[in-house]
Amino acid sequence: MTDFPNPEDLTGFDEIRRLMRELPGPDLEAASAVATREAQLTKPAGALGRLEEITQWLATWQGRKQPRINRPRIAVFAANHGVAAQGVSAYPSSVTRQMVDNFLQGGAAVNQLVGTIDGDLRVYELDLDNPTADFTVEAAMSEAACAQAMAYGMMAVEAGIDVLGLGEMGIGNTTSAAALCLGLFGGTAEEWVGPGTGVSGEALARKIAVVDKAYALHKDACGKDALKWLAAVGGLELAAIAGAVLAARLAKTPVLLDGFVSTAAAAVVYAIDPRALDHCLVAHVSAEPGHRRLIAKIGQEPLLDLGMRLGEGSGAAVAVSLLRAAATCHSGMATFGQAGVSGPV
Amino acid sequence: MTDFPNPEDLTGFDEIRRLMRELPGPDLEAASAVATREAQLTKPAGALGRLEEITQWLATWQGRKQPRINRPRIAVFAANHGVAAQGVSAYPSSVTRQMVDNFLQGGAAVNQLVGTIDGDLRVYELDLDNPTADFTVEAAMSEAACAQAMAYGMMAVEAGIDVLGLGEMGIGNTTSAAALCLGLFGGTAEEWVGPGTGVSGEALARKIAVVDKAYALHKDACGKDALKWLAAVGGLELAAIAGAVLAARLAKTPVLLDGFVSTAAAAVVYAIDPRALDHCLVAHVSAEPGHRRLIAKIGQEPLLDLGMRLGEGSGAAVAVSLLRAAATCHSGMATFGQAGVSGPV
Repeated sequence: MTDFPNPEDLTGFDEIRRLMRELPGPDLEAASAVATREAQLTKPAGALGRLEEITQWLATWQGRKQPRINRPRIAVFAANHGVAAQGVSAYPSSVTRQMVDNFLQGGAAVNQLVGTIDGDLRVYELDLDNPTADFTVEAAMSEAACAQAMAYGMMAVEAGIDVLGLGEMGIGNTTSAAALCLGLFGGTAEEWVGPGTGVSGEALARKIAVVDKAYALHKDACGKDALKWLAAVGGLELAAIAGAVLAARLAKTPVLLDGFVSTAAAAVVYAIDPRALDHCLVAHVSAEPGHRRLIAKIGQEPLLDLGMRLGEGSGAAVAVSLLRAAATCHSGMATFGQAGVSGPV
Repeated sequence: MTDFPNPEDLTGFDEIRRLMRELPGPDLEAASAVATREAQLTKPAGALGRLEEITQWLATWQGRKQPRINRPRIAVFAANHGVAAQGVSAYPSSVTRQMVDNFLQGGAAVNQLVGTIDGDLRVYELDLDNPTADFTVEAAMSEAACAQAMAYGMMAVEAGIDVLGLGEMGIGNTTSAAALCLGLFGGTAEEWVGPGTGVSGEALARKIAVVDKAYALHKDACGKDALKWLAAVGGLELAAIAGAVLAARLAKTPVLLDGFVSTAAAAVVYAIDPRALDHCLVAHVSAEPGHRRLIAKIGQEPLLDLGMRLGEGSGAAVAVSLLRAAATCHSGMATFGQAGVSGPV
């Protein structure tokens, strides 16, 4: 297992940038072994469709000739946002803490979903009593604080985890995600801003104006530097997710991204090096409209399209069952030879 | 539990037509109870998207205020087709029996998938040594044989099953399904015929010609009578699936349809009375091109789109995990009151 940096040791992005230059590539030997076996299994070639692609992807990034999903983990990172004071959410910031308590007591959607996949749920609070600064006025956080949150997020990755789903909770964080997407990929604030927990009308217009203002404030200082954008308009939970994405790559742990916020955080890594996100799949496309646009920008195809928009890792948890279906078919099916089944005429 | 007709007692479709006039309607009280609770759960309204619709549907057709997916069953019906002699499949008819043996020995994809959902797999052979007649020459089966196969299919429905997935195995049966769709919904043979297990070029052209010929031969005798079309160009496994759909409705068991063949069989019921299929969802849209067209004709939205085209109940088995996710969220989540979470401001 790779040693990850200690959060307190970081004073800026140097260590993060160094890690990004050392990311391991695909395990082509494992991928080839899976392709060979796949062709022998008792089904017409390609008949399991996307499940076959998933098996290939799992083998490639687990580095295993027999990929498996015995130990899935969902990690939920929670933080508060100074920008919430601008009235961009339908809920008060106090709900972040209340929902964390709900996670810990087992009452949230993600608790039930993790139960159905026989998974492990970890909840990480990032200084809930100290929201990031209002990014319409100044940078949400310093580069040091951002790098530290990234290193903190790496702790969600441990030996023995077969897939890591990355979720979040943070009132105001779809505003942060929209500003981050605008910084990373351009376009207009309207294209990236959506209802989040359920704002519309004047509140939605305010949310768009907030994102416009943030972009104008930070664009000169951030330029094309994705990590600077993360510090300027991101949040602690977004930084933690970006860190977890990197740590998972180092530890040969495939990743399921969840909704708009989770994918926006991972898009920081993509903006630096598109190949650095090859070990990640987008679990589902959210009803939050910016998510579909973002998924296309990072060249992915979501596994599920169920109109979910809850965050908290819920879509990632549901998608774990598809990964398990894929890996279990591959490892358990008989070959044509074993089963005495004739091939095509 | 309803008593289903005994296969040997049936000499035609009279009993089937009588059953179809007596199908129970939706349980609106259960649906209303679920809607009331849904609004109190700790999430923004509608944030679980399609999972909330699934919960509502399960309650409506299980007739339970607390829907559950504790005991899912996948039923696979297997039969052989005289039309296979026309060279419409990439595989010989002997593969039907070989794959049934593979199911019984646990080596097929569906065995692995049923394992991942902690479900129950039943495999029903329908006289594999006696294929139906070649429907380019005469009706595939008599009305009595068709009705008997429908009654046989009803045996897959037993008390205590929370959802029934309906799959099939039968070399040649995508040709049968295409002919059935053409008879029920019109259009052209090209629109309904696809590669099935993997035919292309001349073999695909032959498959289209076979379906055209079958339609021309049977259209006057069948007219608008969906059950007559089922006997004329269907197969024993398609008839069994249609029967299982009816039995499931009588027994308050929601149904997951699988791929093109499974959905075509259920479409016979839809063609007689569209409301008679309200307790069924299409689990996934297959790569077989006729499936997407057929799903639109019966007014459904598939739960999954994974490019699968295996049949044998595989897509239905994968989709069970979505139903369980939905039911488990609904039953297990805390309400705003229980969790002390604030509602929208």
